[in-house]
Amino acid sequence: MEMIRVSSKSKPNAVAGALTSLLREYQSVQIQVIGAAALNQAMKAIAIARGYVVPSGQDIYCIPSFYDLEIENQVVTSLRLNVEIK
Amino acid sequence: MEMIRVSSKSKPNAVAGALTSLLREYQSVQIQVIGAAALNQAMKAIAIARGYVVPSGQDIYCIPSFYDLEIENQVVTSLRLNVEIK
Repeated sequence: MEMIRVSSKSKPNAVAGALTSLLREYQSVQIQVIGAAALNQAMKAIAIARGYVVPSGQDIYCIPSFYDLEIENQVVTSLRLNVEIK
Repeated sequence: MEMIRVSSKSKPNAVAGALTSLLREYQSVQIQVIGAAALNQAMKAIAIARGYVVPSGQDIYCIPSFYDLEIENQVVTSLRLNVEIK
């Protein structure tokens, strides 16, 4: 599955465009975020991307799960969003 | 559709329990959040709630959309998460 990382500095409109292209090609994409601000940008991007696909009779679903990452010898819990177009 | 509000102070474990009960009764629930910290608690709650329903062969999907609220004469953009069990 394709994976994209979204940070607190990512622009939701730009992420939405990339996400839509990836979803049209692969049907599912994984978004990885660390922290509330990054998650916020990712969820905004999904809401925006829905606007691109809903007119063609599809919709975007998201399924969150926890994932432990090791960064500089510290365990950081990130959220992974499995995003699917249907 | 049943609606629950999640704030930055909501406990993800408690929200996950309530969410699971509501989903089992109504199949879909709307979660309303304002701000990144509240969204973070809501998404953690959904990830936890998945652990309650996945063993019985179901899963939880979430569909975000924007929603403008008027609070004290100011327009605040909130995120609404349509949460569905399938």
